[in-house]
Amino acid sequence: MDAMSRIERTLAEALAWAEAPGGPPRLAEAMHYAVFPRGARIRPRLALSVAYACGDDNPALADAAAASIELLHCASLVHDDLPCFDNAGMRRGKPSVHRAFGEQLAVLSGDALIVLAFQAIARAATANPERLPALLLIVGNSVGVPKGIVAGQAWECEPQVDLAEYQQEKTGALFAAATMAGAAACGAEAAPWRSLGEHLGEAYQVADDLRDATCDAEELGKPVGQDKAHGRPSAVTQFGVAGAVKRLEALAAGAVASIPPCPGSAVLQSLILQESKRLMPKKLAQHAA
Amino acid sequence: MDAMSRIERTLAEALAWAEAPGGPPRLAEAMHYAVFPRGARIRPRLALSVAYACGDDNPALADAAAASIELLHCASLVHDDLPCFDNAGMRRGKPSVHRAFGEQLAVLSGDALIVLAFQAIARAATANPERLPALLLIVGNSVGVPKGIVAGQAWECEPQVDLAEYQQEKTGALFAAATMAGAAACGAEAAPWRSLGEHLGEAYQVADDLRDATCDAEELGKPVGQDKAHGRPSAVTQFGVAGAVKRLEALAAGAVASIPPCPGSAVLQSLILQESKRLMPKKLAQHAA
Repeated sequence: MDAMSRIERTLAEALAWAEAPGGPPRLAEAMHYAVFPRGARIRPRLALSVAYACGDDNPALADAAAASIELLHCASLVHDDLPCFDNAGMRRGKPSVHRAFGEQLAVLSGDALIVLAFQAIARAATANPERLPALLLIVGNSVGVPKGIVAGQAWECEPQVDLAEYQQEKTGALFAAATMAGAAACGAEAAPWRSLGEHLGEAYQVADDLRDATCDAEELGKPVGQDKAHGRPSAVTQFGVAGAVKRLEALAAGAVASIPPCPGSAVLQSLILQESKRLMPKKLAQHAA
Repeated sequence: MDAMSRIERTLAEALAWAEAPGGPPRLAEAMHYAVFPRGARIRPRLALSVAYACGDDNPALADAAAASIELLHCASLVHDDLPCFDNAGMRRGKPSVHRAFGEQLAVLSGDALIVLAFQAIARAATANPERLPALLLIVGNSVGVPKGIVAGQAWECEPQVDLAEYQQEKTGALFAAATMAGAAACGAEAAPWRSLGEHLGEAYQVADDLRDATCDAEELGKPVGQDKAHGRPSAVTQFGVAGAVKRLEALAAGAVASIPPCPGSAVLQSLILQESKRLMPKKLAQHAA
């Protein structure tokens, strides 16, 4: 079964527990709405790519690890969209959860998705419980304190803060968790995989910044020029378009170079090079070629 | 070390991770504010009582299990107090978290406390990882879907619902988790301990209802007669004072009778009888004597 099918099946199974008899139906509906239909599933695909490269000897645990990262990502989007934060009315081309279900169910579905991430890992771990402490800490630390995505978001509430640094931290945390969790689910040492996740997390961030600055709205599917308009930190405002393109290329090369020795390193290298090319906005790729 | 000292030490250690270098200080402060100074710590004390009764062969894991239940309880209070739910201005005699720190940090500190519960268990589990799948599922299911406290709260968002049933479910979930987690942390089978937690959860609920109906405000430390005033489901409005007293006595007896065979059953029995007497409002206890 290909990676995307594994991810969608595991997420659907996890969401089905929310729909089990005796549970509140609208909460289950709001949770489902927050997770489907799928986005790019970048983080869980990355986790599974690393699991393949490490031997994938317990696919159920790797699937659960990948799904847990995506559930936490979705939870963070639901809470970030709340009126007290971004007050975002739209997400992935449809009304945000609090617009569609109300603020109460938005808070609760975010909470329940966080818990579901840990329930999913626990349910899959009976065969290799000795892998759980490392895996849980990777996942927990990536979302909690002191340096996970919740902590990253909380920097917005500090009187003095380097926003560029915290945004990078916030994006990087789940990417590093994805690569490390993919390895830990296979019983491999996780720490050497952090660098790959951090490189790719920053690469996706730079690619986003480039698309915001250089694409037209039709190509992007959302308004462009938002970083400049809102004075948000961006690789393009910091380095210019050419500088950001160079940064993206350097990050992709750094990602490939950071892959630790493992059975599937050659396949993983080519996957990452392929994905890096896809990341570069088309116009700029043609320009560079 | 006595149970309360173990609980406070473990909670303080968990909260210290929030205060680790590199984390946002105000988030750490809000999380600390939500957990300290201590309330009665009823649920973690119950978890440790069961762990004692089951042999307490891994005190670090039992402490983490007990602390995780309390962290989840505190998280649920922070989110329940939010403006979109109860909009409660006070909690435990001081301003609620969103009043003291703002709504953003209230959402985030609740999220981070949920995650911290799982981080605490993961950090303590290296010696007995084989106990983790059961322990994590007990804790996760008690707070998540389909029947945990988040699901319990979500019943408020359903068009048709038996509020009495959901309130009982919401209180009962963490009490059942406390007894079952105490057992699972010692490697004992958890399911036989559910009944004890459910009996005690309902007993505390009935005792609360009795105090609301029969104490004066000075004795209770908060306004009385609130259940009747707000038309809330209550054992007193359902059965009358005498009926509720009988129900509380029956629940205490049922709790004692439900204790599964274990090394420390005699001590646990007397602890529960003692606690049940403490639960009965003083006036009513004198009346019955």
